Amino acid sequence: MSKLIIEGAPLPNLPWEDRPAGCNAPLWRYSQNPVIPRDLLPDSNSIFNSAVVPFKDGFAGVFRCDDTNRRMALHVGFSKDGLHWDIRPEVLRFSCDNPEVGKWVYGYDPRVTFLDGKYWVSWCNGYFGPTIGLAWTTDFEVFHQVENAFLPYNRNGVLFPRKIGGKYAMLSRPSDTGHTAFGDIFYSESPDMEYWGHHRHVMAPAAFEVSAWQCMKIGAGPIPIETSEGWLLFYHGVLRSCNGYVYSFGSALLDLDQPWKVLARSGPYLLSPQTPYECMGDVPNVAFPCAALCDSATGRVAVYYGCADTVTGLAFGYIPEIIDWTKRTSIL
Amino acid sequence: MSKLIIEGAPLPNLPWEDRPAGCNAPLWRYSQNPVIPRDLLPDSNSIFNSAVVPFKDGFAGVFRCDDTNRRMALHVGFSKDGLHWDIRPEVLRFSCDNPEVGKWVYGYDPRVTFLDGKYWVSWCNGYFGPTIGLAWTTDFEVFHQVENAFLPYNRNGVLFPRKIGGKYAMLSRPSDTGHTAFGDIFYSESPDMEYWGHHRHVMAPAAFEVSAWQCMKIGAGPIPIETSEGWLLFYHGVLRSCNGYVYSFGSALLDLDQPWKVLARSGPYLLSPQTPYECMGDVPNVAFPCAALCDSATGRVAVYYGCADTVTGLAFGYIPEIIDWTKRTSIL
Amino acid sequence: MSKLIIEGAPLPNLPWEDRPAGCNAPLWRYSQNPVIPRDLLPDSNSIFNSAVVPFKDGFAGVFRCDDTNRRMALHVGFSKDGLHWDIRPEVLRFSCDNPEVGKWVYGYDPRVTFLDGKYWVSWCNGYFGPTIGLAWTTDFEVFHQVENAFLPYNRNGVLFPRKIGGKYAMLSRPSDTGHTAFGDIFYSESPDMEYWGHHRHVMAPAAFEVSAWQCMKIGAGPIPIETSEGWLLFYHGVLRSCNGYVYSFGSALLDLDQPWKVLARSGPYLLSPQTPYECMGDVPNVAFPCAALCDSATGRVAVYYGCADTVTGLAFGYIPEIIDWTKRTSIL
Amino acid sequence: MSKLIIEGAPLPNLPWEDRPAGCNAPLWRYSQNPVIPRDLLPDSNSIFNSAVVPFKDGFAGVFRCDDTNRRMALHVGFSKDGLHWDIRPEVLRFSCDNPEVGKWVYGYDPRVTFLDGKYWVSWCNGYFGPTIGLAWTTDFEVFHQVENAFLPYNRNGVLFPRKIGGKYAMLSRPSDTGHTAFGDIFYSESPDMEYWGHHRHVMAPAAFEVSAWQCMKIGAGPIPIETSEGWLLFYHGVLRSCNGYVYSFGSALLDLDQPWKVLARSGPYLLSPQTPYECMGDVPNVAFPCAALCDSATGRVAVYYGCADTVTGLAFGYIPEIIDWTKRTSIL
Amino acid sequence: MSKLIIEGAPLPNLPWEDRPAGCNAPLWRYSQNPVIPRDLLPDSNSIFNSAVVPFKDGFAGVFRCDDTNRRMALHVGFSKDGLHWDIRPEVLRFSCDNPEVGKWVYGYDPRVTFLDGKYWVSWCNGYFGPTIGLAWTTDFEVFHQVENAFLPYNRNGVLFPRKIGGKYAMLSRPSDTGHTAFGDIFYSESPDMEYWGHHRHVMAPAAFEVSAWQCMKIGAGPIPIETSEGWLLFYHGVLRSCNGYVYSFGSALLDLDQPWKVLARSGPYLLSPQTPYECMGDVPNVAFPCAALCDSATGRVAVYYGCADTVTGLAFGYIPEIIDWTKRTSIL
Amino acid sequence: MSKLIIEGAPLPNLPWEDRPAGCNAPLWRYSQNPVIPRDLLPDSNSIFNSAVVPFKDGFAGVFRCDDTNRRMALHVGFSKDGLHWDIRPEVLRFSCDNPEVGKWVYGYDPRVTFLDGKYWVSWCNGYFGPTIGLAWTTDFEVFHQVENAFLPYNRNGVLFPRKIGGKYAMLSRPSDTGHTAFGDIFYSESPDMEYWGHHRHVMAPAAFEVSAWQCMKIGAGPIPIETSEGWLLFYHGVLRSCNGYVYSFGSALLDLDQPWKVLARSGPYLLSPQTPYECMGDVPNVAFPCAALCDSATGRVAVYYGCADTVTGLAFGYIPEIIDWTKRTSIL
Repeated sequence: MSKLIIEGAPLPNLPWEDRPAGCNAPLWRYSQNPVIPRDLLPDSNSIFNSAVVPFKDGFAGVFRCDDTNRRMALHVGFSKDGLHWDIRPEVLRFSCDNPEVGKWVYGYDPRVTFLDGKYWVSWCNGYFGPTIGLAWTTDFEVFHQVENAFLPYNRNGVLFPRKIGGKYAMLSRPSDTGHTAFGDIFYSESPDMEYWGHHRHVMAPAAFEVSAWQCMKIGAGPIPIETSEGWLLFYHGVLRSCNGYVYSFGSALLDLDQPWKVLARSGPYLLSPQTPYECMGDVPNVAFPCAALCDSATGRVAVYYGCADTVTGLAFGYIPEIIDWTKRTSIL
Repeated sequence: MSKLIIEGAPLPNLPWEDRPAGCNAPLWRYSQNPVIPRDLLPDSNSIFNSAVVPFKDGFAGVFRCDDTNRRMALHVGFSKDGLHWDIRPEVLRFSCDNPEVGKWVYGYDPRVTFLDGKYWVSWCNGYFGPTIGLAWTTDFEVFHQVENAFLPYNRNGVLFPRKIGGKYAMLSRPSDTGHTAFGDIFYSESPDMEYWGHHRHVMAPAAFEVSAWQCMKIGAGPIPIETSEGWLLFYHGVLRSCNGYVYSFGSALLDLDQPWKVLARSGPYLLSPQTPYECMGDVPNVAFPCAALCDSATGRVAVYYGCADTVTGLAFGYIPEIIDWTKRTSIL
Repeated sequence: MSKLIIEGAPLPNLPWEDRPAGCNAPLWRYSQNPVIPRDLLPDSNSIFNSAVVPFKDGFAGVFRCDDTNRRMALHVGFSKDGLHWDIRPEVLRFSCDNPEVGKWVYGYDPRVTFLDGKYWVSWCNGYFGPTIGLAWTTDFEVFHQVENAFLPYNRNGVLFPRKIGGKYAMLSRPSDTGHTAFGDIFYSESPDMEYWGHHRHVMAPAAFEVSAWQCMKIGAGPIPIETSEGWLLFYHGVLRSCNGYVYSFGSALLDLDQPWKVLARSGPYLLSPQTPYECMGDVPNVAFPCAALCDSATGRVAVYYGCADTVTGLAFGYIPEIIDWTKRTSIL
Repeated sequence: MSKLIIEGAPLPNLPWEDRPAGCNAPLWRYSQNPVIPRDLLPDSNSIFNSAVVPFKDGFAGVFRCDDTNRRMALHVGFSKDGLHWDIRPEVLRFSCDNPEVGKWVYGYDPRVTFLDGKYWVSWCNGYFGPTIGLAWTTDFEVFHQVENAFLPYNRNGVLFPRKIGGKYAMLSRPSDTGHTAFGDIFYSESPDMEYWGHHRHVMAPAAFEVSAWQCMKIGAGPIPIETSEGWLLFYHGVLRSCNGYVYSFGSALLDLDQPWKVLARSGPYLLSPQTPYECMGDVPNVAFPCAALCDSATGRVAVYYGCADTVTGLAFGYIPEIIDWTKRTSIL
Repeated sequence: MSKLIIEGAPLPNLPWEDRPAGCNAPLWRYSQNPVIPRDLLPDSNSIFNSAVVPFKDGFAGVFRCDDTNRRMALHVGFSKDGLHWDIRPEVLRFSCDNPEVGKWVYGYDPRVTFLDGKYWVSWCNGYFGPTIGLAWTTDFEVFHQVENAFLPYNRNGVLFPRKIGGKYAMLSRPSDTGHTAFGDIFYSESPDMEYWGHHRHVMAPAAFEVSAWQCMKIGAGPIPIETSEGWLLFYHGVLRSCNGYVYSFGSALLDLDQPWKVLARSGPYLLSPQTPYECMGDVPNVAFPCAALCDSATGRVAVYYGCADTVTGLAFGYIPEIIDWTKRTSIL
Repeated sequence: MSKLIIEGAPLPNLPWEDRPAGCNAPLWRYSQNPVIPRDLLPDSNSIFNSAVVPFKDGFAGVFRCDDTNRRMALHVGFSKDGLHWDIRPEVLRFSCDNPEVGKWVYGYDPRVTFLDGKYWVSWCNGYFGPTIGLAWTTDFEVFHQVENAFLPYNRNGVLFPRKIGGKYAMLSRPSDTGHTAFGDIFYSESPDMEYWGHHRHVMAPAAFEVSAWQCMKIGAGPIPIETSEGWLLFYHGVLRSCNGYVYSFGSALLDLDQPWKVLARSGPYLLSPQTPYECMGDVPNVAFPCAALCDSATGRVAVYYGCADTVTGLAFGYIPEIIDWTKRTSIL
């Protein structure tokens, strides 16, 4: 593993905290969690399941901020250090020539990736049910919305950060209209970000006997990270107890050229809801990752994840260790 | 709003705590919450969803006290300051000439109002399913039970504190036999507290996209407060997440003469379960108001609300501010 | 039983067919069933669950006729012999001063009774859910709609044909918003057909081990028939198999002065869906009575019942025999 | 309507039977129904939900034939007159270069259209759940399977018979993994039969109060028929009674250039399950159209529809009459 | 197969009808079906799911006869020819010293086998839920009830007709308390008909793609028939459509000494509900076998099966053909 | 009660903490709870629902330790004081000659009792669904697995610590395949730990109105404790709120010779989830006892119970007090 190559530019200023003494887990929580409190905005009920990317000399992001109507909305935010955020109080509105597409119903759980010179946002977009909305920006001021990628009903659409085989590529999770009780991850590609096809099955939930935390449904989390060992994917999994759903997350390695082929998949979770801010809130027992910042030079990674659908948490690790652990614990 | 008139006698001795520094919400929690702990009685499992009124030089109330069999019961209590309560350990039993009506099955979630010289209690009364029981007292010693107001299945019956258009008036929420997954607020009137009719639809749950905390079912809370702007109603709303129900509460203004006409209705919640004593307990994530004390001279209001179906909380605000906020955030 | 007195005028011209040879059941089907086919009207999908009464020198009725939109509607009809019907193609519309009440949403399953000089119609009326609508007519041309009797959710409201204890009286079955999986019969009274109260429980479903055809829900059928042995009530009962609901009907005797007291209740069904027109149609396996014509002089009775929610059937019997059988097979 | 133009070649030899005396419905059943019995093949349990097109001097088709294992399969068949069919006993297998796409899991409910010189088959194709499979043939011997059009979960994919706005066009109904309890019709387009996008909402189920037979879910039936009044679409609708689902079908007119715009939509059904072979079988109460043959010269149309998921029925009508009726009864 | 040996005495007088011309199915229906009508007893609603055995110079049986209360009961019956039955009108009551065991709650779906000189009856017996009751008789007059074989919840307990490995042996299907949506067949053994153990799994439902008629639950039918090819077992299987359950039946061969090992299992059904008396009745779409009479000399077999939970049907076949067919179509 | 005799050897070194000042409940929590944290093993997600017994000069036990794959497993552990545990990191594997029985699928919720010179372990064992596994050991090194006691589906199998009436005896709770929504306690006996029969009903859930915490399902907890007043049984009960299941526990006295006869049964719970470690974790609101250590000389008892399906708690009491309280509060 010593020769692992991580693609992408160095990011020496990513938010970071060293592994605590006595901890030997591949991922550890930020000691000041939640890094973003529920009421950072004057009228916010909760801020969680949000995406950040390096931008200029700091960071920018698209944030899921539910207001105290419990309406879901997206907001733009900026930060110098990835820890202290200036989230704009006004709701993000997309520019769109076509009102059939651009009419806003609801949107949540955004992801952001830099791709071909633009920052692309994908999110769960309301269009006669949940589907995957797409938009791009260069400045985090104006966002240009394009066609929805798929028919309803879909959630957790996550773009890859570069074309693969000459095509744009996206992971997503077909769903139903409600609190979907099933969910596999699929892969789709597009020549133009407008028409999508070549749909491929990537992963199903694991067998209960093999890895119960991911036995009911799974969904892609942050933008996959390209390494010489494959695409590193953080993904959430759900277990249903007699008292509802438990959302944890783990990791997988996908083939670089054919990302629908899974090379390794962690049996244990990387992180499950165990702290009060993960166990208690609007939706108890949720840890849901949506973004990761990565320093290719040192292999450090910082994962942003929603906690109890209420606040945002941060966790840290080293990519080489996580890849090694993913392969070692793989259930394939 | 400076000319707002609040009906009713001054109540200078209502329980009160000033707004904490830095808080600009229209309602704030009592710093010593829960004001009533779960085990105030020797055998109580929980004390919550209870009603209080001014009585003599202090306060009296009817309390929902579940015992450690988890049986629901009503108890009478008294207090000098509204904060420290002497709850009678014996279960409240109603006097009733008619055993068909007066036979006790179960009762919970009481409200109390002073009306025409009597203190009227309404509660969810077991009669081949839940319906609305009615009784009156003058001394909180003897309670005279009259006919149930409606057929089953009903909950959250709340009387208005005076006749409207010459008729007694009540809000209620038709239900089913179980953990009802729907619920609108209706208005009914009666010439004699015996026969009820002229049923009117008041409010349905809000659309999910508009105000999600109240999108599954809603129900009236404390006795409406009469003001020159209309009846001020605190009411609870329920959202169903994949991990169960979340009970929050907001406010509405009803027309003084035709209270089934809603003048304003808050989009945001006034208070949602966010503290450990609201999020953790026998039923997690519940904030459920049943009574409000109001000082007409100063506009101060103290709201009693059940927390996690386990303990009783107290919150404070100014009625003019709340009315202003209700109108400003209205979703109508 | 020879001295049984049946109240009401003689009705020598009621539709009739003698008991077939070899049959000793208390009720037998009309050999020309279905007496009303599904497509008697040009656009009707089905005609069933309808009510008839003697009128002038023949009969009149209010019919549930669903059109080929599968919209439920009520129609007026007339007949000389009770067998051949002239159903008016235009939808029945009620006159009502109050648009809040009179606004038509939907209506179905009517019953009609002659009471205090007027023909009163009760039906399942849509008002933010199903409830009991009420209207009267003297000529079956103009129908005057009054207040709904109850809050939603209710079905199968059936008036008694005279005041009891000086009050109007009605049976009904509180329900939920959908294909209600429960249902008891209740009794309510009113001084004025406007305000209703004094609600009493009459009958619950039977235990599965005792009488399974009526073990899930029950509801009153035709207007009760007054006899010296009590009110004779035909009522439907529902059993749920793994393939859905089965609607049969039986009979009960209610106390004359306190009709919420049940004197006898048949364990067997009088009639269950067994013929193709009862087993096959829009809702398979339904026999649902809504009206009965009775000749007090001879004791003959003709019961109209909906078949498979598609057509109308007719069955015949002798009231003294049915009363005797009800008492003999009673499960009380 | 006298000037109505129907696109397409004349088809003088389509199966036909004149309207029976006394019938004035826009569609009437073939007197020899079921036209295809359940056991036409030696091991077939049922033959239904199948598609036929003109081919050479007669007709060809793709048939859903479940065997007595109750396994779903597609078979090819030929007929001289459209009434008597020679269905090939061997299962249809598609040629496909890509095993990820071509691997057979299950397939059912085919539609066939002639488009750009090829016969295109669309069907519900098992690929980690139901989605829309696509293949073409020129001879009904070799079928070339291409990419699935959409992500799972989808059913009732129906191609238009020509490009619209320069794009291939398809209707479909996003679904869930089981006996889906919801369903809207959507429109999608493709430059190349490979990538699909520009998804548009076409129709939702109707309100229960407006047209109940189509109030739970709807789905496109045969290939739309192009006329000067718009695309004539036959589509099925589903009502859920307490005894399960009822499948009927009606008609709609779609804008020629923007087919997601509905110009008219029949409130009544054209045909609902009423005969024994529609009401009784493996799935009672199903009438489900998948194909229509049309003679543009005379306006005659013959609709093939599955009956009770067991046999195939045939019904006849005149397109000008159906269009006129659709507009006259429209619920838009 | 010419050398197939069938154990047991010849039974030349079993009911029989030759295969109809043109039929080449392994099982064919009796032309006079239903062999037992629903109303053979004066108060019977239905007679079905019943068991018969050779007895003296004719046949005896235990019959499930639901009365018109829809109460389930068992009755004894006798017949000379297996076609015309004299069913005793009085309910079968078991003798039992222990009231804890012998108290009658309900009983249904009996099987009977001759074993060690006694006729043993097993049935679904109500004891705080459904379990397997056991009793023996020598004369079909007095039945001696012994301990229930298992804890609740269980159904379809079927004894083998001889000891296996020195132990009594039984098949059963663990269930839940309601319309169980799952069900595997298990094997258990006992040294003494009193204590049971050594439980072994026999068969699960088939995969939907392989044999859909048996994909939701399965259960043993008649007493297994011993042959030189193994135990021939008729068993029912259930498919759930959107309109409820469909009960068909097929066949399997079990290892003679280790009957939990399945040697062959038919993919197709032998018989599925297709006639009006199987498709229409109290529970539509049910064919449920409970007994088989077999003539070892000729290989003829007569299968009694419940139809639509309403009447009893009879079907005929040749055991060598059925065994051959079972092996040829096996899905193992 | 002063003459109460508790069977069994003295156990002066059981873990113990005196009743806290001001507490007068019959059971109190250990001040250092949770006595076993979730991560005592390197890869454990949770340690709960586990059983301990006196062993040599200290204690031994079988522990449910789920790993971070959320796979359920059993582990052996030892302790000198019952508070600090050395749990073996390797998974417990049973020795079994018969692979049909011994094949490991999953196992959880063990109980251990010393009986006839052996330590017997019973647990919920996966064998085509949950059933009751049985094994014995003498040294907690080698465990000899014998036949499963019952058919699936069963949970909470608890052996009595001696033969009763010459037979081995066990309590269990028949279940279904999932998060079973029902559950009674039954009693079964065996001559040889191999075959089981003589099944008797012991207790059903209580009526909601009588003791709501145990109104949905109940199950035996630790090995029953023999006293001169009967067998003292701790058992859990479940209430279903709109936010899921709540597991509490109470106590009952069973007849010494006929333990299916309940002599007393506590209406109140002994302990319900009230602390953060009981209310918050993988399954919120669970207190689930599996073992009790008892000092017969002093009457002291220490109860181990699972908390929130995450950690293990300890509670203390005096058996004479608990028996007295059980009788005093009995709901029988």
